[in-house]
Amino acid sequence: MEKTDVMIVGGSVAGLMAGVTVKQRYHQKKKVTITRQVSKTPVPCGIPYIYGTLGAVEQNLVSDEGFINQGIDMRTEAVTSIDRENKTVALADGTRIAYDKLILATGSQPAMPPIPGIQTGNVFSIKKDPEYLQTIQNVLESSRHVVVIGGGFIGVEMAEQIAKMNLAKCNLGAVTVSLVEMLPHCLMLACEQEFCSDAESELRRLGVNIMTHTQVKAIQGDGKVTGVQLASGETIPADAVVVGIGVTPNIDLARQIGLETDPRKGINVDSYLRTNDPDIFAAGDCAAKFSFFDGQPTGIRLASVACSEGMIAASNLYRPLRQSMGTVGAFGTMVGDIAIGAAGLTTNAATAANIAYVVGEAAFPNRHPGCLPGCITDMKAKLLFNGDTGKIIGGHVRGGQSTADMVNILATAIQSGLTAEDLATMQYATHPLMTASPMRYHVMWAAENATIKLNANRSS
Amino acid sequence: MEKTDVMIVGGSVAGLMAGVTVKQRYHQKKKVTITRQVSKTPVPCGIPYIYGTLGAVEQNLVSDEGFINQGIDMRTEAVTSIDRENKTVALADGTRIAYDKLILATGSQPAMPPIPGIQTGNVFSIKKDPEYLQTIQNVLESSRHVVVIGGGFIGVEMAEQIAKMNLAKCNLGAVTVSLVEMLPHCLMLACEQEFCSDAESELRRLGVNIMTHTQVKAIQGDGKVTGVQLASGETIPADAVVVGIGVTPNIDLARQIGLETDPRKGINVDSYLRTNDPDIFAAGDCAAKFSFFDGQPTGIRLASVACSEGMIAASNLYRPLRQSMGTVGAFGTMVGDIAIGAAGLTTNAATAANIAYVVGEAAFPNRHPGCLPGCITDMKAKLLFNGDTGKIIGGHVRGGQSTADMVNILATAIQSGLTAEDLATMQYATHPLMTASPMRYHVMWAAENATIKLNANRSS
Repeated sequence: MEKTDVMIVGGSVAGLMAGVTVKQRYHQKKKVTITRQVSKTPVPCGIPYIYGTLGAVEQNLVSDEGFINQGIDMRTEAVTSIDRENKTVALADGTRIAYDKLILATGSQPAMPPIPGIQTGNVFSIKKDPEYLQTIQNVLESSRHVVVIGGGFIGVEMAEQIAKMNLAKCNLGAVTVSLVEMLPHCLMLACEQEFCSDAESELRRLGVNIMTHTQVKAIQGDGKVTGVQLASGETIPADAVVVGIGVTPNIDLARQIGLETDPRKGINVDSYLRTNDPDIFAAGDCAAKFSFFDGQPTGIRLASVACSEGMIAASNLYRPLRQSMGTVGAFGTMVGDIAIGAAGLTTNAATAANIAYVVGEAAFPNRHPGCLPGCITDMKAKLLFNGDTGKIIGGHVRGGQSTADMVNILATAIQSGLTAEDLATMQYATHPLMTASPMRYHVMWAAENATIKLNANRSS
Repeated sequence: MEKTDVMIVGGSVAGLMAGVTVKQRYHQKKKVTITRQVSKTPVPCGIPYIYGTLGAVEQNLVSDEGFINQGIDMRTEAVTSIDRENKTVALADGTRIAYDKLILATGSQPAMPPIPGIQTGNVFSIKKDPEYLQTIQNVLESSRHVVVIGGGFIGVEMAEQIAKMNLAKCNLGAVTVSLVEMLPHCLMLACEQEFCSDAESELRRLGVNIMTHTQVKAIQGDGKVTGVQLASGETIPADAVVVGIGVTPNIDLARQIGLETDPRKGINVDSYLRTNDPDIFAAGDCAAKFSFFDGQPTGIRLASVACSEGMIAASNLYRPLRQSMGTVGAFGTMVGDIAIGAAGLTTNAATAANIAYVVGEAAFPNRHPGCLPGCITDMKAKLLFNGDTGKIIGGHVRGGQSTADMVNILATAIQSGLTAEDLATMQYATHPLMTASPMRYHVMWAAENATIKLNANRSS
């Protein structure tokens, strides 16, 4: 029977990151085997860009080469069973592999709303499967009316890319793209409302028909989709529907072998990402998540969290070394010419959690002087600080391509427990072609704005 | 006699930032008067861009309007004397103003090397004076041979912009731009040597003749400069020379009124930026600086540090509230198509200070997948961690326009005392169009690379 030191089930980012981490941390001395069901691993966050900027599924694949070069044994077989007692894994091709440590990185599957007609042809979810993603592309290319259901990151990015592709082909008017969202705004679970509105404006400018506060009642069509019926009774025509309303963790294998699982939360793990079997870990979308802020279960599932968990699980295989601090939620996206990003809590989330907070804001050009080419004249940072401790609990940015990195200053600050006072008095690098003026660096000034409010609260 | 609450001497960034801070923190209740000698305040970091991208001195001025709108009394008069006993300031126009608190933000002046001919016509330094900067432009526009002395940030940016302007005018070959630097590399006091080499390659691509390891012996010319004689004996032709070798603090006024000063270090201040007069503070280039790392005096003078000090001094006027933590040194610049930036110590500086350190590195594309438009395929982060404590002491980045913001993640980490372990296990926002893959986010992976080395050191 084949033997491996570390068997990893699942070859998307959590599994790959775990594999690389083992190889690096143990200086190539551990044998690592990764098996996945799909032929290739798509770059998960890049999937929407297949349908616009990239133009092809093949442009959005993680190359296996780098992993093979590091000595990782890459397989493309489903796991049919796991024998925990004898510590072996059976693959669909009949292979059995004995393992020392096992990491489950089985990921998630797209959630589908329980509405009539959801199984109709040309109604798609976003599966991390190259063949399936190619089918979506084939259908989109011949579609005149596309409806995206769900205005989270993936829905917004899909709508934006399909609209852009349409504009690029000078097909303006030939294709309609509608985005249907139940909530009052797109992206509002992650982002501040004013930034959501900005994103919606950009989407409209690109020709997307945005329908918020709107529920889908049924999918119409006989064999292939012809329309989407809304709760209002209205029906919008559709040759293709893309559903992006969230994901559910893949726990079947874990449940089958008797690990503790919860259908909504995922595979039960502790902060070291250990399951209830001391030799089995779980990381990424399949594993249960808790919030950095209150330790409560959270539904936020991100590739970046999956990577972090892959690294943490791999570091703990032989001794408990690293703890997950819980999901912070650090995001970024681009819509048309603007980028928006967030780390931590929104004002809505803080209010819902009964956390008293103070907001610090700064809106300045992201170049200095502001007449420099490429300047975004109203880049904005909006920071939330705990009203009692002064610690940062949320950071929101709207700007240009450096938005994600500025969000990461704030994500770092949140995870380090920094206060408004800390962020106001720190020194930051600035440069005319890259940032606001040193007098107006967004993070510094938004934090200073908050310190003044925090001081006023304390003295009142 | 006129009265003001807060008198600020100097209207560049430290003074302006102090003025705005007083207005904000005291809710417009304090009267603030700022006086400066120049007619307008140039954006200090933008000065090199006057001679290329911006094309005009007027494009690079800080507008007074925003400060006047906040109720700040803006004057353009030199201060002729200060009466500390009676707490009054006399301006060149004869006005006397009584103050409650005084902030000296008198800045610095360009250092000039003591070489023969340095006073020759068309040999310029970089003064923050619009009229003078206009003279430079007039001369540059009719020059065929330009020599920049000093390969620090300002010298590199001046050479890059003059070369770019030349390229843009299709004058390729009509103008020669030479950059003369004593040290083995440009930028090497702030940046890692490999990044300095990258900047030099970009400069060469733009047509700049780079002469490192090279000393200037004399400036030649009768009335107007005709050439620069090097220590080697070689003379390079020059119609214009720009000197950027550093600055010396303006302490004359402070010395004249009996404050403690040091001609090299600046006006003596404590960590609250108080001088030895309890009602007089000093901030920005005129004030003495100490290093964040060892508390020793440092010659690093940056607009961003000046802004931070302006804010700190203004916050401490009525009670000691905020301490400067010392100069970290956080920089960024763009040279051609690449940006480089740094926070904290270089490997050279750490070695010179006898600090044992471990380096963590990561080089990955700054988009994912890497075939996305605008991708810089070899963005690199190089982090230095204290070998004993694991705390980050230096962060170096080469990449695109988000480089400065990534440097600020590292500047924040340095100022917060974060370790390699902290940075490796944090969650970061990633996005295909803005960052590396979540599996390869530069900060995370460079930190992980260092943790492995730190662990190896500890177990050996």
